[in-house]
Amino acid sequence: MNTEQALLTLKRNREVLFALRHAASILGIDGETVAPSGSAATRAKTMGEISRMTYDLVTDKEASAALEYLFEHRDELDPVDRRNVSELYRHLDDTRKIPKEEAAAFSMLLAESSAVWHEAKIKSDFALFEPYLEKVFDGMKKRASRLDPERDPYDVTMDRFERALNTAKCDAFFGELKPRLAPLVAKIRKSEQIDDGPVVSLFTVEEQRKISDFAMDFLRLDRRYCSLGETEHPFMAAVDKHDVRIHTHYYAENFLYSMYSVIHEGGHALYELHIGNELQGTSLAGGCSMALHESQSRFFENYVGRSRPFTDRLHDFLTKTFPGRIDSVSKDDFYRMVNKAGPSLIRTEADELTYSLHVMIRYDLERRIFDGSLAVHDLPKEWNRLYGEALGLDVPDDRRGVLQDSHWSNANIGYFPSYALGSAYGAQYLAEMKKSFDPLKAVESGDLTPVENWLEDKIWRHGKMLDPADLFRSVCGAFDPSVYADYLETKFNALYN
Amino acid sequence: MNTEQALLTLKRNREVLFALRHAASILGIDGETVAPSGSAATRAKTMGEISRMTYDLVTDKEASAALEYLFEHRDELDPVDRRNVSELYRHLDDTRKIPKEEAAAFSMLLAESSAVWHEAKIKSDFALFEPYLEKVFDGMKKRASRLDPERDPYDVTMDRFERALNTAKCDAFFGELKPRLAPLVAKIRKSEQIDDGPVVSLFTVEEQRKISDFAMDFLRLDRRYCSLGETEHPFMAAVDKHDVRIHTHYYAENFLYSMYSVIHEGGHALYELHIGNELQGTSLAGGCSMALHESQSRFFENYVGRSRPFTDRLHDFLTKTFPGRIDSVSKDDFYRMVNKAGPSLIRTEADELTYSLHVMIRYDLERRIFDGSLAVHDLPKEWNRLYGEALGLDVPDDRRGVLQDSHWSNANIGYFPSYALGSAYGAQYLAEMKKSFDPLKAVESGDLTPVENWLEDKIWRHGKMLDPADLFRSVCGAFDPSVYADYLETKFNALYN
Repeated sequence: MNTEQALLTLKRNREVLFALRHAASILGIDGETVAPSGSAATRAKTMGEISRMTYDLVTDKEASAALEYLFEHRDELDPVDRRNVSELYRHLDDTRKIPKEEAAAFSMLLAESSAVWHEAKIKSDFALFEPYLEKVFDGMKKRASRLDPERDPYDVTMDRFERALNTAKCDAFFGELKPRLAPLVAKIRKSEQIDDGPVVSLFTVEEQRKISDFAMDFLRLDRRYCSLGETEHPFMAAVDKHDVRIHTHYYAENFLYSMYSVIHEGGHALYELHIGNELQGTSLAGGCSMALHESQSRFFENYVGRSRPFTDRLHDFLTKTFPGRIDSVSKDDFYRMVNKAGPSLIRTEADELTYSLHVMIRYDLERRIFDGSLAVHDLPKEWNRLYGEALGLDVPDDRRGVLQDSHWSNANIGYFPSYALGSAYGAQYLAEMKKSFDPLKAVESGDLTPVENWLEDKIWRHGKMLDPADLFRSVCGAFDPSVYADYLETKFNALYN
Repeated sequence: MNTEQALLTLKRNREVLFALRHAASILGIDGETVAPSGSAATRAKTMGEISRMTYDLVTDKEASAALEYLFEHRDELDPVDRRNVSELYRHLDDTRKIPKEEAAAFSMLLAESSAVWHEAKIKSDFALFEPYLEKVFDGMKKRASRLDPERDPYDVTMDRFERALNTAKCDAFFGELKPRLAPLVAKIRKSEQIDDGPVVSLFTVEEQRKISDFAMDFLRLDRRYCSLGETEHPFMAAVDKHDVRIHTHYYAENFLYSMYSVIHEGGHALYELHIGNELQGTSLAGGCSMALHESQSRFFENYVGRSRPFTDRLHDFLTKTFPGRIDSVSKDDFYRMVNKAGPSLIRTEADELTYSLHVMIRYDLERRIFDGSLAVHDLPKEWNRLYGEALGLDVPDDRRGVLQDSHWSNANIGYFPSYALGSAYGAQYLAEMKKSFDPLKAVESGDLTPVENWLEDKIWRHGKMLDPADLFRSVCGAFDPSVYADYLETKFNALYN
């Protein structure tokens, strides 16, 4: 064997694997969007077969020999190949630790649990979902013990989304953040409340679709490569940089929900649309980690989308497109309404300030299920207790409680901290950008080019070339949650005087 | 080897193949519906890989040895296994005649040509589509010569949709039909014209979606297993009897287009939803042929959907759901409007009477491209000439001309005769039903159960257990196009006095 031959063997193997992943990705999107509900069992079987074929290809004798050869000779490779080979080698190593049939059964489970969650949420029926959720948590614990029996299984699981993140780091982060947020939330609860009711329910679903188009255009999302669809729980999925999908959900009673979902998922989409061309076809062609990903989505959702210059432009758009609807609402009031803060039931609708409190609840619950101190069966009760404790709320039903997020049905456990981490990263991006240009001026002008160019240059194009903590450090230096806490204090003290 | 072992080997092989077909089917649907336009190239590559994997599995040494063993011992098998093995053996034989890379390249071509057709249709730009269409026709000619170099290549190609159909049979059918339709069409052109303009443009797209729901309910389509989506050119696609997809297209200016598309595709869907359970997992689990399939879709579209009892019920629904819209239109006039006959540009919008003339034009063109007497480049000119000759129309652009149908972009060449054949079959079903019950009474009552039970018992549940001509004969005896011609004469003479 020589390097050139080995690279060719690997490339051919990866092309077939990519096709299987592409198929699995589209089957997954289809299942979450337009597939009839009764199709879940067949789809689960197909996912199982694709998992088996994928396993066989990853562990294929010839291809894995080539990979091992390349890994031994990685110092001779160019930087992209070197990183690609290292990542693939790590993935091969992980794959070999999990028996093929166990992996296939878990893929099938996820296809089913996703469909059952969907039904359970609509019916607000946790009992329907419980047996599946139990299996998902058990499966993830087993996976963790197979991958690394020495480490804490929840840490191993978090690694899947954020390499090298662990409970120690999360605890430190939340430990710093919570004491700064809690008094602010308490103060706001005692302040005069902002009433956004009359404004947010003004637009029909058909009109909200036009507002989505406005948001997509504002983010400069290229519709040739980025589609917009509908689903129960908003998500972005990418096949490659030429096939990125945003999905939102329209509620007639709140146009802000669908619009901020589009902007949030649009931030994810921008990342995937701008991965460097030289990484296409390698394992590095995707967002670096989930915290990095959420740092993009949350950046556009909040630092851009909930900024005063954006709400002013949105106000202009709405008064022009739908005359007579919000004309009597001043831009000052509109900004305050959009940024209304305070305890709420739904994470994805939460204001910037309380958002991380939602995340901390999920983190706490996951961790305790992993260490065995909480049973899946007791999740709803415990969920509701924590929402009472942290946010002073009564959860009226599981649809607006423990069933609200799709994540667990897809085994996205250990994922939630990424949202808070990503939100905090954004405050540091903003500070960094201000050293060379004014990002809010760009929002005001309606042309986000400088913001997007900066993010593309610093983050997007690099894909997975660096580990996430290293990538963040290369952009902003040390991670400092106080920048985020300062930002929130300044913004919400001003809003609520 | 013994029969039991061989059946198990074959079953396992078929399970994996089913997963690949499932994936290819969903990728195809995705490409025709929600995928961003720029995703076509990647999807084409994936289709190529799936084609290669499929080829390897079909020709797998162990599985094909098992199949050959079973084919030799087919007399020992039960009827379903025997038929399944015979069909699979025929398929293996066909697969072996076409080189793997040629098949993969053709799959890739179709994924691309489908996307290009879509763009070309919207832009009304035949030149964009022409090079792809040329390759599709060339590929299908080559395929025919590989499958059976002794037979007429167009006959071989028609076989794909309707086993044993050939130009001799088509010529005989059209030869009998055309002389009966032409004078009727000519007479109607001289009669007083029906004006449906004010009625068909009354409903917004959002309202048309409600009319679609009415049509789905009327056909008793179970939404758990049958979804309704949107696309450029209406189609039905089925993964299995628990996953059937209908797609329609909404034009604000004509609510009848979307509704009759839903009913037409709904007829296809009913067929797939009622394949016998004992055929699931075999190669027999699907509609018997395209003429049989179109005989279902055209039956519900016309014999049910354009019948007087249906238009009365539709009138009731529309006046109740959208008060004040068509209240001033009498049920008599509404029936006449819905059945307005006369030359038109678009096949899928054609009335029952002129419909087959559209089919004959396509049949004529395909045949001449296959025998070399017509070049793909000259298709638009020739299309327009034939529409002038047969229907007295000037085709204003290729969008409403040669680019209107998606079929050729998907290599569905030799498919069109199925529509006319299926339409003719329907007249014989109606006559057969009347021997045991009154199908129009069922329509009038709003409960199609007796109609659907009859079709399920006679046709749907049997899947591909019989060859199409045999299945039709088992239901209606000899094929007799005069029953169809009589039906059309009676209906349209009455409508136009």
